[in-house]
Amino acid sequence: MSGRPRVAFQGERGAYSEQAALSLLGREIELVPFSTFDAVFDEVQQGACDYGVVPVENSLAGSIHRNYDLLLRHDLYINAEYNLRVSHCLIVHPGVELSEIRRVYSHPQALAQCEHALRELGDVEVIVAQDTAGSVRLIKEQGWRDAAAIAGETAAAHYGMSILRCHLEDEKANYTRFLLLSRQATTPDGQSKTSLAFAGKNQPGLLFRCLSAFALRDIDLTKIESRPLRGVPWEYVFYLDFVGSMAEARCQRAVDQLREMATFVRVFGSYARARAVWAEPETD
Amino acid sequence: MSGRPRVAFQGERGAYSEQAALSLLGREIELVPFSTFDAVFDEVQQGACDYGVVPVENSLAGSIHRNYDLLLRHDLYINAEYNLRVSHCLIVHPGVELSEIRRVYSHPQALAQCEHALRELGDVEVIVAQDTAGSVRLIKEQGWRDAAAIAGETAAAHYGMSILRCHLEDEKANYTRFLLLSRQATTPDGQSKTSLAFAGKNQPGLLFRCLSAFALRDIDLTKIESRPLRGVPWEYVFYLDFVGSMAEARCQRAVDQLREMATFVRVFGSYARARAVWAEPETD
Repeated sequence: MSGRPRVAFQGERGAYSEQAALSLLGREIELVPFSTFDAVFDEVQQGACDYGVVPVENSLAGSIHRNYDLLLRHDLYINAEYNLRVSHCLIVHPGVELSEIRRVYSHPQALAQCEHALRELGDVEVIVAQDTAGSVRLIKEQGWRDAAAIAGETAAAHYGMSILRCHLEDEKANYTRFLLLSRQATTPDGQSKTSLAFAGKNQPGLLFRCLSAFALRDIDLTKIESRPLRGVPWEYVFYLDFVGSMAEARCQRAVDQLREMATFVRVFGSYARARAVWAEPETD
Repeated sequence: MSGRPRVAFQGERGAYSEQAALSLLGREIELVPFSTFDAVFDEVQQGACDYGVVPVENSLAGSIHRNYDLLLRHDLYINAEYNLRVSHCLIVHPGVELSEIRRVYSHPQALAQCEHALRELGDVEVIVAQDTAGSVRLIKEQGWRDAAAIAGETAAAHYGMSILRCHLEDEKANYTRFLLLSRQATTPDGQSKTSLAFAGKNQPGLLFRCLSAFALRDIDLTKIESRPLRGVPWEYVFYLDFVGSMAEARCQRAVDQLREMATFVRVFGSYARARAVWAEPETD
C-alpha cells in the first residue's frame, strides 16, 4: 500500500513491541498489530508482513518460551536484536496534575513492577487492564481527567497524552530483548551473534560434548538455556547464542561438529550484536 | 498457634501456589499468604514461617528470574520440588449453568492461555482481574450469578464454588515447577537432585571447563540457564540442576572442582527428584 515495510508485532498500538520495532527499523515502517504471537509468526511466514518483532526474554521474568517454540515451528530468520529498557511512565490527559489522579490503570505485571511508586501516589485506586498501551487508550477514549495509565512513552506519543512521571519501576534493571524476524537470512557486518537450538538424548556429558564444538574454537557463548522437550521424557532442547557469524569458517565448522553430536540442530540466523543495556551502570 | 508448620506463599488464598503447598506438605499446615515473593523469603528467613513455596519456572513462560534473585539474596535451602500441572477451571456459584454466564473474570495471563475456550463461550464479556483466585473471591463476594472466574480447582474449593469446566487452557502441557524452601538443608533418600548457581568472568570455554566437573564424573544435568549479571558487563550467573545429592562423595568432588573454576558457587540444596509431569503422554 505505502511501499514501506510492513512490521508485525503483538499488542496494541503504542505497546513496548512497537517501541522496539521503531528502534530496530526507524519511522518509515507500517506497524501492523496482532493480538497473538502466533499471528505475528504466521503473517511474516505467509508474506503478508515483511518483518516481525517479538520479545524473547525479560531480565526479571526470564525467557519467553512461547516465542522460542514459534521460532522452531516456523521458517523465519533472526535479522537483528534490540535490548529495550522497560521504563513505565505515568500517563495522563495534557494538563492533568498529580493531585487530580484518583485511579491508575495498567497491566497487572506493570502494576506489580511499580509497587513502590504507586504507594507514594497515596490514596488512588489501582485498576487492572488488559495491557499497558490499552490502558492509555481507555482513559483517552473515556476522557477521564481523574485517571492515569502506566505504559511506555510510545503509548503516550501514539495517543497524544502527557507523561507526568517516568521510571516508575521499582527495579531499574528491567529490560526486554526483542528479535527482528524475516523470511531471509542476513549476513551481518562487525561484531555478530548467532542463535541456534539443538537437542539430544540426555546422557551425562551430552551438553559438555556439544559445547566442546565452541570451546575448542574459542567461540564465546552469550546465552544457554535448557528446556525439557514436550512429550519426550528426559530429552532436552537447548537454546544457545554465540559471538560470531555463520559467514565465518570457524563458526560454520563449530556448527558442523555440533551436528555430529546432537540429534537436531537449527540455526536461527546471524545478526549484529546489540548493546547490552542491562550491563550499564545504574544512573538512578 | 496451631503447632502445624506455617507455610508462606505469594498470592491470595486458593492460588496455584497454595495448591503446590498442599501437594508438597499435605493438609496439616497453616497457609500464610503474602502479596509479594520478597515477603515470602523474608518471613521464612526471619523464622516467622517454617516453609516457603515459590514457583521458579513455567513451561510456557520460562524461568521466574525474580525468585532466583531472591534465592541468591537469602540463606534458605531447597527441601523439595513439585511440578504442578496448571489446569484452568471455569468457576461459578453452585447451580449456575453455562448459558447464564455473561462475564468472565481472570488474570490476563490465564485469559490469554484460554483464548480458544473463551471464544467457544460465545457472547461473554471478558474482564481482567488482579489474579486468578481473587477473581473467584470477587464473584463469590458480589453474589454474581451471571459471572464466572477462571482459576485453579483449589480456588473453587476454598470459596465453596462450583467448577463448570476444567482444562480450559489451549496448551495442555502447561506446568509450573515449585520449590519448597526452609532454613535447614535436607539429605534426601532415593533419586535426588541438587540445585546451584555459579558465576565466572565470561571467557571462551568458561562454561565448558565448569561443566567438565560434572561430565568427567558422569553426573547428569537436568537444567542449565545463563543470565547476565546485573551491572557487571559480560559476566554471567548460571543456574544448574544435576542428578545426585551433596551427600554423595562424587557430587561433593564435582562441586569442589567447580569452585576452582568459577568465581562464585552457591549450593541451594539437595532434594528428592519430582515426577516430570510435562513428559507424560497427553491424555486429551
